Order: sequence, then C-alpha cells, then structure tokens
Amino acid sequence: MSVATAPSQTALTAAETDPQTLGWMQGFPPPPDKTITFHSGSFRSFPELRWAWSNIRQLVPTVNVWRGAGPASALPRAEHDIGASASVTMDGRPMTFARMLEETYVDGIAVLHRGKLIYERYFGALKPHKPHIAMSVTKSFTGTLAGILIAEGKIDPQAPVTDYVPELKASAFGDARVHETMDMTTGLEYTEIYTDKNSGVFGLRRANGMAPIEPGYEGATNIFDFLCAQKKQGEHGKAFAYKTVNSDVLAFICRRASGMTLSDLLSERIWIPMGAEEDAHYHVDRIGTESGGGGLSTTLRDVARFGETIRNHGRFNGRQIVPSHVIEDIARGGDREKFKPAGYTTLPGASYRNQWWVTHNAHGAFMARGVHGQGIYIDPMAEMVIARYASHPAAGNAANDPVTLPAYMALAKDLMAGG
Amino acid sequence: MSVATAPSQTALTAAETDPQTLGWMQGFPPPPDKTITFHSGSFRSFPELRWAWSNIRQLVPTVNVWRGAGPASALPRAEHDIGASASVTMDGRPMTFARMLEETYVDGIAVLHRGKLIYERYFGALKPHKPHIAMSVTKSFTGTLAGILIAEGKIDPQAPVTDYVPELKASAFGDARVHETMDMTTGLEYTEIYTDKNSGVFGLRRANGMAPIEPGYEGATNIFDFLCAQKKQGEHGKAFAYKTVNSDVLAFICRRASGMTLSDLLSERIWIPMGAEEDAHYHVDRIGTESGGGGLSTTLRDVARFGETIRNHGRFNGRQIVPSHVIEDIARGGDREKFKPAGYTTLPGASYRNQWWVTHNAHGAFMARGVHGQGIYIDPMAEMVIARYASHPAAGNAANDPVTLPAYMALAKDLMAGG
Repeated sequence: MSVATAPSQTALTAAETDPQTLGWMQGFPPPPDKTITFHSGSFRSFPELRWAWSNIRQLVPTVNVWRGAGPASALPRAEHDIGASASVTMDGRPMTFARMLEETYVDGIAVLHRGKLIYERYFGALKPHKPHIAMSVTKSFTGTLAGILIAEGKIDPQAPVTDYVPELKASAFGDARVHETMDMTTGLEYTEIYTDKNSGVFGLRRANGMAPIEPGYEGATNIFDFLCAQKKQGEHGKAFAYKTVNSDVLAFICRRASGMTLSDLLSERIWIPMGAEEDAHYHVDRIGTESGGGGLSTTLRDVARFGETIRNHGRFNGRQIVPSHVIEDIARGGDREKFKPAGYTTLPGASYRNQWWVTHNAHGAFMARGVHGQGIYIDPMAEMVIARYASHPAAGNAANDPVTLPAYMALAKDLMAGG
Repeated sequence: MSVATAPSQTALTAAETDPQTLGWMQGFPPPPDKTITFHSGSFRSFPELRWAWSNIRQLVPTVNVWRGAGPASALPRAEHDIGASASVTMDGRPMTFARMLEETYVDGIAVLHRGKLIYERYFGALKPHKPHIAMSVTKSFTGTLAGILIAEGKIDPQAPVTDYVPELKASAFGDARVHETMDMTTGLEYTEIYTDKNSGVFGLRRANGMAPIEPGYEGATNIFDFLCAQKKQGEHGKAFAYKTVNSDVLAFICRRASGMTLSDLLSERIWIPMGAEEDAHYHVDRIGTESGGGGLSTTLRDVARFGETIRNHGRFNGRQIVPSHVIEDIARGGDREKFKPAGYTTLPGASYRNQWWVTHNAHGAFMARGVHGQGIYIDPMAEMVIARYASHPAAGNAANDPVTLPAYMALAKDLMAGG
C-alpha cells in the first residue's frame, strides 16, 4: 500500500480512457482487441480495469448480499453544484472539485451534507444501479461487522485469534490477538507491494479468486489455506503494517463467531436494516469464501448510505444499525505512534483503527480506502460524507491523496460556511 | 434431450439428498468432503448439484438482469393445500401432488390459479429470494424476446440467419432461416446427449462457461466461436431436433437486432415491466456472452410471474408486456408431424414452437422445460400456472414427465371442479 507507482499509461486521461468511448466490451461479441477477460489477466490492465471494476461479476464468481424485500431507504436530495469548489493540491496546484474527479479517474461520486445528497455524478462504465468493486473499502465493512459482534459479546478483541480459528495455530496468527488483526499490528512476513510480482498479495489474489491460477501452481488456491500458510516476522502489536490478510482473518473470526457467511452477516446486520437500494456482492474463492479484505461490490448510493450511517453514529433509516460506541471507538482512532513508521507521507499524524483510516485532522475525518481510489470520507465536523468509486491507473492512494484530500477539506469548509 | 438415464445414485431420495441435511458447503470453510467446486466438476455430480443449482453464481461468472427500482408487482395469495391432489402416473402408480414433489426432487414449486398464488413450497437449498438456475427454461425467455422483436419489426422470422449474424455464413446456420432456429428444425451434426461425453453439448458447456476448460483444450472457448464452428447434417426445416445451439443463435439474432445484451433486453422488456421481485442473472462465457440456451437463474416467484404473464396473453402488472399474438402463436404450437420423429414417448402429439413445448392436450397446455426438472406449465383452460425448480439426478424430462404431467392434469381438473 505504501508503494504506488503509476503504470506508463498514466499519461492517458480519464476522458481518454473512458470505457464507453473506447468501445470496450461492446458488440455481440466484442471485437477481440476490445475484449476483456479474466483468464488472460487483461481485466487488471489499464485502461481495461476502468470497465472491469464496474463489471467484476461478469469476470469472477460472486455471492449476493441481499438487500431484503423492503423499499430502499430515503436518500433526500438537495442538489448543489460543488464542482467549482476550489482547493490547492499538496504539490501546490490550484484545483477544483470537478477537475479533481477527472484527475483521479472517478467512476462515481456522491456527496452528502447533513444527510442530504447534494452532488452525484457518474463516469466511465458505472451506472446508479450497478455495483462497483470497493476493494479495500471492503475492510471497513468487515471491521464494522466485527465491531457489532464485539458489542454483542460474540467476539472478544483481547482473545487469541485461535479461540475462533484454531486451525491458524501453526501460522503467523497462532499467537496474535483479535485486536491486532483489527488494527493491522500483526508481525507478518507477507508483503503487500502491488508493483512486485513476488509480493504476498499476488499469492492472495490467486487464493481469493482475483487472479487466474496457472497449471502447476503450488500455492494456496483458497483464502483459508493461504491464511494458514502465513509466516510470522517480527512481533505482534508493535507497529501498523497494512496487510490484507489481517482483514481476511478477521472475516473468518466474524464467520465463526456469528455462524454466518460474511455475505449473510452483512445482509442481515447492515444491508437490510440500512434499506440498501440494490444487492451488493462479494467475489468468492474456489470454495465459496468471500474476500473480506477486498471483494465487496456495491452501488455508489449504497456505499453513501453506509457512510452516512457511520457519520450518524450508526443510526440510519430510523434504526440504530451499528452501536454508537463502535463508531466512536473507530473515530477516536488507533495508536498514531504505531502508524508513523509506515511512512504514509500523505497522511501525516494519521492512525488505523479497526479497518478504518483516521486522519486526526482538524475536522476529525476518517476514511475507508480502496486501492484504485475507491473511498468513503467522513467529516464529522462538516457533517459531510463523500462516497467515491474510481479506477485510477495507479494502485495506491498516494496517487490520489495529494489531490483528493485537500479538495475534501476545502469542500468541507465551503459547506460549513454555507457555500 | 431424448436420452435420459439416471445415474446410479437415483436410489437416494430427495430427503436423503437434501443439501442442508448433508451439510454441503456449510462451515467456514466447509470440510473438504463437503465442498463443491466448479474446477473439480463436482458441482455437476449428484447430489452436489442439489446445492449447486441454487447457488450457481458462487461457481461461475454472471451478469445481472436488473429488476428496476420500482416495487415488486403484487402476487396475490389464496392459500390452498393441494398436496393431496391425486393422480396416476404414466406407469400406473397412484400419486399425490405432494409425493410427486418428492419423487421429482423439487427445490421449489409455485402454483397460480386465476392469477392467485395458491401453493408455494421450498425444498433443498432454495429460498424465496434466491435464484435457481432455469437451464433450458431459459430458451423460452429467449424465444419470447425474439417474438417481441419480431412484433416490433426488428426481426424477420423468414430472413436468413446471416442477415443478422453474417459471421455464421460458413457454419451450419449459413443457409438457415430465423424461424428454423426458433422451432429447432435446423439440420445439425451437433448432438445433445447428456450421457455421452463426446456429444456436442459437452463442447457447448466448455464454450458457455458451464464446464472447466482443461489446459490444451483446442475447442471453442466462447459461445460465438462454438456456433461459428457448427456443421450441417441433413436438411433445414424438415424435422424438430432439440439442440441448444439453435437458442444460442437466436440469442445472437436478438442482440444484433436490438443492439442490446440479452440481459439488458430481458431487463428492459420483461423483468422491469413485470415488476420482478429480485434481479435475475445469466451465467456468461469468457467474453461476457450470456448463455441464451440455458444460463438464466431467477427466483421461483419471478418465474411464476413470467408464467402468469404468458397465460394472460402477455398482460401483467397492469401492462401489455408481450404482444398477445406472440403468445397465441406459441400456444397454437408448431408442426406436430415434424415433432413426431423425435420420439418423445412422454409427449405424444406434442410440438415445439418458438422455444416452447406445446402439449396439444385437452387443455391446450404448453411448457418451458429445463433438464433437471425445471419448468413452467401453463394450462389455459384451467387458468393454472405451475412454476417449478428442481434438481433431479437424471438429466432429461423423461424422468419427470411420467409423474409430473398426470399430476398437473389432475390438479387442473381439481381446480376447475372447485376442488
């Protein structure tokens, strides 16, 4: 996550890589040079991923997160064109909110202010009713579900991971505590460097179903086996290190503690009570396990609803969906000293708490973040939520933060000033 | 389709093969001997298929058929326990409606009488909100969509197939007419014998994504290439022969004529106006093509809604969804002389018209039929619709018909008599 260099194609702009304009996956069948497939791996290339992240279900097996049979919850509108909201990027360039969307390859953006949807735009291959892959925003759902189960007494954050998943005994997680997976302070050999094909994350992708498995491959072919094979490096509890396997372990803890699949748990505890507009889905591995670290796809409006639920201390659609103290605990943040050595230059003074990123900025903003620029940005002071799906060519938010974070703060100030 | 022998496990009853009782795919992760996967091919074995046909989306890539943002249409209820309705099987055994459900491995059954849902039961791994794979019931949707496009003047049934899909010029379809694919009277070398691994249908499954492709496989790896490679045998227009490739060609004709994917076409023309309760989905091949011959999955209630739409001459949810003459043309049936040589002993005097099976029985019943016992049975005289999902061990309705068809007729008579 800390390493993020853009591929050579970054010279191509969002407009130049619009999947519709480029004709990707159009025609019956699409022409060979406009066809995107899973087996070839082309779905991960840029600009192909601009189509793929809005159509992941056509590429890999998935499981539904049912929205229930009731009506969608109200999402009141108060249209407000914030496109001209002005900011200055971290490297000193003048920027507008609208221009920021283009520069960061946004597929969809929804801004809520005081619970009203003031701005909603779609680009690329995304449509209001279509799910977009949230990638690591998924982790913040997993953490929130874990928080709910802790509040119910079903998970003890101080307990050993092996109390819930004894099969991890011989792995790196054999002497880890639940809260260390929540806060990603485990000591692991696993690495998550998206530009290094030998990095652990490439094995995780094969295991979780997001990369083809070549004949003769001898690594794990499902998430559980991959987790059981993880080796320890260093000590647990000492420092934050962003490693997706923690989220996948936490997802297994949630399943074992609740007796439910992650998809049914999310449906029952959040998607149905929240009054989601559309079913969500997780991609699954070869034995049906949801990717709790990156596999969720939702519509933009539904992730906005979730963000608003969090901003409202867990209350939405007339119900207390998440206990307020679970969210207050997240918003207070984690250990900033443990976060510092990770070296996120765009997030000075930040921390990581229960699968959420906490800025500790003047507004107390906190975030869910996905690797191609997906995100939820919650600004409690400005009563603002930004939900965003994107397909940035660079894998890593270091490519987005210098442009997006100042734009979010500027917008927050505009809204607080009644602008 | 005419060949249908049951595997050796048919001794096991529906109750003995209940996926829930057997523990298939339960646990996190499920134990290896209770795990069902696509890559191993185990999802096609019995009793594993009893889980798989209600969970196909977890095994293969799919594309949504959106239900729209509106409320589900009303499906008024008038509960009536018809379980004791008595019949005699074709081989002379006394039977009840409830016992018929067990004997034919039903996963879900919905009976409508005069537009009211009088009976609805779920078994196996099916739930009211979960889609079940319809398999060849899909064909009747494709045919109905083709009928709509013909009514709109977008397809000419007398035109050569190559008017819509010129790439088929060198194939068996190079000199076929559209109506010959609708009625399955093309002359093809392709065979559809589910018990013969060398039969054409096994290649179609690899092409359409419903069977793993082994390394080194040299056949077609997508539906379009498979269709283009089909060879002619005999003459077109002479005799009915049930061959799924006709439906897949018809699906391509629909796409080319409408400019829409099959999933978007079904959504726009039927799923949204019908007020479906849940999204449906198609499984897709490696390049995103829906299987128009067998890939649709829907909930039981939604396939019941579709059946009722057809029974009502295309009118449902306050709208004329399918032009009435399209349905009247289907109900009148096809050429019975061309059907006869196919030798369906359980369907004497029947015909096949535009992807529907027409009994020409005393009630004028017609049907959509899937290979593991899925079906829609429309009895116009009794104002009765039976929608049914099943996971029969035998691939072929010869295993169901001797029990189901007399039970349906007996029920129709009971309902007409006010019983």
